[in-house]
Amino acid sequence: MLVYTMTTPRLTQASAPLTQELTVLDEFGAQRRITVPAERALTVFVDNRELVTLMTLGAAPELLVLGYLRNQRLVESAADIESVTVDWDVDAAAVKTRAGIERFDEKTAKRVVTTGCGQGTVFGDLMSELDTLRLPPATEASARLAQTRLYGLLNAMRLQESTYKSSGSVHGCALFRQDELLMFVEDVGRHNAIDTIAGWMWLNGVHGADKIFYTTGRLTSEMVIKSAQMGVPIIVSRSGITQMGYDVARKLGLCLFGRASNRHFICYCGFERFDAQPEARPDTPRHPGSPE
Amino acid sequence: MLVYTMTTPRLTQASAPLTQELTVLDEFGAQRRITVPAERALTVFVDNRELVTLMTLGAAPELLVLGYLRNQRLVESAADIESVTVDWDVDAAAVKTRAGIERFDEKTAKRVVTTGCGQGTVFGDLMSELDTLRLPPATEASARLAQTRLYGLLNAMRLQESTYKSSGSVHGCALFRQDELLMFVEDVGRHNAIDTIAGWMWLNGVHGADKIFYTTGRLTSEMVIKSAQMGVPIIVSRSGITQMGYDVARKLGLCLFGRASNRHFICYCGFERFDAQPEARPDTPRHPGSPE
Repeated sequence: MLVYTMTTPRLTQASAPLTQELTVLDEFGAQRRITVPAERALTVFVDNRELVTLMTLGAAPELLVLGYLRNQRLVESAADIESVTVDWDVDAAAVKTRAGIERFDEKTAKRVVTTGCGQGTVFGDLMSELDTLRLPPATEASARLAQTRLYGLLNAMRLQESTYKSSGSVHGCALFRQDELLMFVEDVGRHNAIDTIAGWMWLNGVHGADKIFYTTGRLTSEMVIKSAQMGVPIIVSRSGITQMGYDVARKLGLCLFGRASNRHFICYCGFERFDAQPEARPDTPRHPGSPE
Repeated sequence: MLVYTMTTPRLTQASAPLTQELTVLDEFGAQRRITVPAERALTVFVDNRELVTLMTLGAAPELLVLGYLRNQRLVESAADIESVTVDWDVDAAAVKTRAGIERFDEKTAKRVVTTGCGQGTVFGDLMSELDTLRLPPATEASARLAQTRLYGLLNAMRLQESTYKSSGSVHGCALFRQDELLMFVEDVGRHNAIDTIAGWMWLNGVHGADKIFYTTGRLTSEMVIKSAQMGVPIIVSRSGITQMGYDVARKLGLCLFGRASNRHFICYCGFERFDAQPEARPDTPRHPGSPE
């Protein structure tokens, strides 16, 4: 069933099975059944022209395509898209725009292969639009994060059911308002995951100024830029950071937390958005078996 | 100092600092200094035409560029390349071929954005050349792996000094002959790491039939295909697998080990290349503190 209005793209709902069972051999010489994540090739056509092939888990392919078009800056508004039709029989997503994409060839001429897991390609000049990105000031309470809220966010992620828990090998990404979980998605590539969230925000007119991104992946330049493009001033990662991710975040005024799980984290930059409520240091070394 | 022969490409040796120090804030409210991996944009020009921009740690950029050209199947032989000149002042690698690249536009027209961390782009049709790949038969002793040798390999990786150990956020990749470590490299993207090893093999005329790949990254379709392109029949990963990685490996007859560390692993497929020497199952649950 497709819903159509003048301004919202029509989308299919072609999610596909997310896992598959295999028989494997372990170190005890025993065969056992395990579950692994699916991985599908999805070739995106825009107005009948082939754009790219994405390798995806397939959880929300229409939102992925929307967010991809947005984060590649190929389309300016979700309202410019008439429909996204995903058909797994031919592993294709057909995007129909209302008025075509201006300068399509020029926009897709440059290739930057980035660090990221997954959708690690940015068309055009990665850095060229950085100066146009504006994030809310750190004085806005909704664009700051207190340590207890960070713990709440990490706890919400810990409780989230996931393909990762059942089969590993996927990256998760979530959108929060403080410690309130708004959306969670997984993909075989973390850039797909963040693009899917971007597609969801775009489709629903959700703004980023009071939001926080959570990712299981590393804080690379591309992740930081995508977050900034969506107007999200704070990112929390279970993983670490790279130099360029740090440099770009500093330039744009993002606050980055990494190595974040349980009650541990590092705040790499954007300290002015962080309301620290420091933990007491343990006076004595922990005894084996004591809770963390 | 450049060495030049008629058949070997001339290479600069433009490795760059691999880490940078930052001041961060931790959960105790304390500022401390940490080390993070570098991440650099390297734009590759082939005969003065821009091909791609790779985001890299910068450990062995010339080998990375060589391996990238090989794994993208843009150049057939290292001897076709006259020189690779990397200049970090302009973040560029200039490749000069001896006779140009045939059908350059056609070969670079298709984009597949793959799952991988890092250099997740393959030009051309990802699957189209699978049928041409031939791996050594599983009856060859050198194309098999025994469980004790697998443990030896994992132990060699454990002892390897690395940027990962000092700063995290990078992927490592290594080439082994049984449990003998031949080459190890790290990069911010694991596809860069495997491409760098491919470049090293190509430059030195090292064949893959009796080799084993180790990667810290996931066993995705692209990793499996790259390994097969280099003729390497066995891959060992610290991480898990995706469905397409599994499907391609089965089709090509690769043996895949994942979740491999210490004395634990899963053999996903290619059991016929694996000489199991099963561990005794522990009779009783381990006591806290007992060695693994």
